[in-house]
Amino acid sequence: MAEHIQGIAASDGVAIGKAFLLEQPELDIQKETVANAEDELENFQAAVANAGKELEAIRAKTLEQQGEENAEIFSAHLLVLEDPEMLGAVETKVKDEHITASYALHEVSSMYIDMFENMDNEYMRERAADIKDVSQRILMHLAGVENTSLTATDEEVIILSHDLTPSDTAQLDRQYTLGFVTNIGGRTSHSAIMARSLEIPAVVGTKDMTSRVQSGDLLIVDGGTGELVIDPDEATMDTYRERQREHEAKKEAQKKLVGEPSISADGQRVELAANIGTPNDMKGVLENGAEGIGLYRTEFLYMGRDSLPEEDEQFEAYRSVVEKMNGAPVVIRTLDIGGDKELPYLDLPEELNPFLGFRALRLCLENTEMFRTQLRALLRASNYGNLKIMFPMVATLEELRSAKALLQEEKSRLHEEGAAVGEAVEVGIMVEIPSTAVAATQFAKEVDFFSIGTNDLVQYTLAADRMSERVAHLYQPYHPAVLQLIKNVIDASHAEGKWTGMCGEMAGETTAIPLLLGLGLDEFSMSASSILPARSQLATLNVTVARELAERALTCGTADEVEKIVHEHV
Amino acid sequence: MAEHIQGIAASDGVAIGKAFLLEQPELDIQKETVANAEDELENFQAAVANAGKELEAIRAKTLEQQGEENAEIFSAHLLVLEDPEMLGAVETKVKDEHITASYALHEVSSMYIDMFENMDNEYMRERAADIKDVSQRILMHLAGVENTSLTATDEEVIILSHDLTPSDTAQLDRQYTLGFVTNIGGRTSHSAIMARSLEIPAVVGTKDMTSRVQSGDLLIVDGGTGELVIDPDEATMDTYRERQREHEAKKEAQKKLVGEPSISADGQRVELAANIGTPNDMKGVLENGAEGIGLYRTEFLYMGRDSLPEEDEQFEAYRSVVEKMNGAPVVIRTLDIGGDKELPYLDLPEELNPFLGFRALRLCLENTEMFRTQLRALLRASNYGNLKIMFPMVATLEELRSAKALLQEEKSRLHEEGAAVGEAVEVGIMVEIPSTAVAATQFAKEVDFFSIGTNDLVQYTLAADRMSERVAHLYQPYHPAVLQLIKNVIDASHAEGKWTGMCGEMAGETTAIPLLLGLGLDEFSMSASSILPARSQLATLNVTVARELAERALTCGTADEVEKIVHEHV
Repeated sequence: MAEHIQGIAASDGVAIGKAFLLEQPELDIQKETVANAEDELENFQAAVANAGKELEAIRAKTLEQQGEENAEIFSAHLLVLEDPEMLGAVETKVKDEHITASYALHEVSSMYIDMFENMDNEYMRERAADIKDVSQRILMHLAGVENTSLTATDEEVIILSHDLTPSDTAQLDRQYTLGFVTNIGGRTSHSAIMARSLEIPAVVGTKDMTSRVQSGDLLIVDGGTGELVIDPDEATMDTYRERQREHEAKKEAQKKLVGEPSISADGQRVELAANIGTPNDMKGVLENGAEGIGLYRTEFLYMGRDSLPEEDEQFEAYRSVVEKMNGAPVVIRTLDIGGDKELPYLDLPEELNPFLGFRALRLCLENTEMFRTQLRALLRASNYGNLKIMFPMVATLEELRSAKALLQEEKSRLHEEGAAVGEAVEVGIMVEIPSTAVAATQFAKEVDFFSIGTNDLVQYTLAADRMSERVAHLYQPYHPAVLQLIKNVIDASHAEGKWTGMCGEMAGETTAIPLLLGLGLDEFSMSASSILPARSQLATLNVTVARELAERALTCGTADEVEKIVHEHV
Repeated sequence: MAEHIQGIAASDGVAIGKAFLLEQPELDIQKETVANAEDELENFQAAVANAGKELEAIRAKTLEQQGEENAEIFSAHLLVLEDPEMLGAVETKVKDEHITASYALHEVSSMYIDMFENMDNEYMRERAADIKDVSQRILMHLAGVENTSLTATDEEVIILSHDLTPSDTAQLDRQYTLGFVTNIGGRTSHSAIMARSLEIPAVVGTKDMTSRVQSGDLLIVDGGTGELVIDPDEATMDTYRERQREHEAKKEAQKKLVGEPSISADGQRVELAANIGTPNDMKGVLENGAEGIGLYRTEFLYMGRDSLPEEDEQFEAYRSVVEKMNGAPVVIRTLDIGGDKELPYLDLPEELNPFLGFRALRLCLENTEMFRTQLRALLRASNYGNLKIMFPMVATLEELRSAKALLQEEKSRLHEEGAAVGEAVEVGIMVEIPSTAVAATQFAKEVDFFSIGTNDLVQYTLAADRMSERVAHLYQPYHPAVLQLIKNVIDASHAEGKWTGMCGEMAGETTAIPLLLGLGLDEFSMSASSILPARSQLATLNVTVARELAERALTCGTADEVEKIVHEHV
């Protein structure tokens, strides 16, 4: 008998196939002594070496298939394996106490995990997750337990799991994974975001699916609606096969939009651009017909290493992206570190509220040598295409003026040194702090463009940490106040003949696009995979109707009302 | 030879007198064994008992002289003395290791202090400071060292110290303390705020004053300008005696304004109200001629105890304030806990960014039983005067509607129970989150009044933690965006025939008052000690000129420009 279940739609598309229940094997680790500590040490070292090989392979595959951002997860895991302190402690325990390496590792890693988990710091808690993953991997090698790894399936299946860590998701074999379903998680959880970027149909937040389904059960996953069907009958199968065909036809139609302009039904042209993290992301950008890069995050250049990147290394990275875009605009954001992102070698202060603290431009303006190096690399790369420089986390005109002064100084120095620099490099700012959105009129006189960063703007405007589950209901991109701020920014830029883009999650959302078109947004920057659906949606919209819709939305009382009137319209 | 030094003006007034250098005695604690552990335990218990007596006495004195808020510090210290875990660990060490109690306490307390200091949580770090204070107090009793305590002076002196903790400041003997000077600290540090409330002239942030001055040196402190003079000559003494007379004459003149209306030179009437923490603060309120209570913080009712306060206990506290105000308005804010304020018995989650987290109304709407109890106590007290209810940290209309619905339910229940409830209790909200300030038009339709909480509004609007020194330069109450938001709130309330007050630090500042008058603010709520100076300033201002000034301020680019045009005007 077919059973229908409603979960949270996480990644569009329909999957029909056999369920594969993914369970972490429970390892039973007891305190046991060993006769020969030397042999046990050898076992341990072999297990560590094998785990390392496995991780190298997964890292390489992820880098190739998914780009550097996802591959970084495994670089972090490899660093754990290379940590002499932790592994040394295990070896000492085996030698001194003549206990099994499994038990020693279990003890040592638990201590580290507890310590990191109890630190009130996102970065440190991620370290705990890394150590947990890596320890589990070594323990399985020690136990000789087959890793029912995500890479181990060799038939097409729908993965079911209580939860998928980003590390699990990154390991999903695109070839064999028809879709996935998790008990927990929401639309913006890491695995949901990753599923969308991998274009794997996914439903999350199903509560108890793993206890209702067994491996081998026939399953339907509709990632567009959040529906699941267990043991569907033939008629149901037919219905969903039809939906699957429709979805694929829609995607085929969208593929034809690569290279086409982004234009509304009544002829309003906008720019659909992509957000990237590293030059490795350029493949997806070009395949999806982005008209520009609206946000090149430069943090990855600084992460997963022991010291600051040199000017030349940065220059090469920026130049490669600018050249690949072949004259199309590339907005590069200067370093946005701090907050939830740390660089161990910078020794940032611990803060009570890191999101309201010393980060991004605030930090660059006090670490001017580091900042000048980046500005020089950007200026030099600007000679190879249409590069624009963007400063993040600007709250005051003083900060903007200081940053521009440093940029001007480095430009003059490069001129003196005879280095080539682009002629008229546009300089803009992220608008992600309420003060800047409110005083946009004053800022518009001193920038070439704005790019609204809704992820941060929403969290500050509503005073709701976007990482905190306890206030997730208050993280409301459609709050009328957020829309009012967006309108204020766009209007202020247009009054000065400047342009405004948006590079937060919102820019690619179906609900947001009509509103943003109506508010007059010039550039929409999003995940590469969202560009073609957005271009397709845009072609159905009428800008005069969108303007009326936006006007009505501004007078709504609540985000719910806004979403309601948009959904009635779309 | 007279030496002039410039520090930071912390509390107005001129002090002329002998310096008294306050130094924590350095105790040299070495690991030493004792012959008789039982005797040492007795010594320890006696020292603990004496420290307890001392703290009880200080607490009682502080409560009487300064009200409950300052006295709470010593309640926290007494709790440390009653902690069986920490003191038990000391006793065990003495017994097992036959070491001195001093060394054992030093070891145990250091461990606790390290642990708490390393937690990224303001509340826990305050616990570390408490333990440090209390341990020092016990150690001094054990060593038989005379406490060169602040209460020990018996002549009029100017206290000099590297730093004054709130605990030090609370112990200053008003009778013998002419003024104080510290090396570190800023205008908004705890000791500066306390100095203003105690009306003690103070200069902070002098860097190295304690190394330039010796006890007994003659000193002049001008807390209005931040100037210090060491070994002044007679001419200088005369100048400052004159300033002292002027200051005192000004204060005498201000005293005459008790009971007078708050009115501008051209006849614009506003309300000058006071912020209070407990009914104990009412003495200052009445002495300073407040026309109402603009903010009664109810947190203190919930703090320094093991369980939630009962309805009757709350009712009595609210009623006593309302009755004392004798028909004048009393705005009582519902519980604003979370963020940097914790209640151990509520077991709040640790958060990465507590200021952007689960606090105040957010928490009350999920702990409805606790919230209903407070609402019932407020409604019952409303029968005894002019009580208004205010909800803090409102970001969305849904929250306001939920809170009002709970209030209505409790009102109906009280009616059914036959309890007396005030006829038309006004219900308003704090405007301290940008979304609410931006969408004030929508909110104005559903409240009776607004009260702008600038302390939080500024930190969210500029995304700058008001506790963090690293971003203190970005905490800008005079940023044009903040002024724009204030204007928006006031205009929205007036359009609906409602009123707007302000209960942040800004409402009492000399620079802010002309701007706020110009923007149309109806009620200014401040520390009681600021009311008479504000009333005096107001009488010199012209509302039509203030309006022009505010208009100009709104078009300024930076906070500095705003302050400049105001200072030119004042």
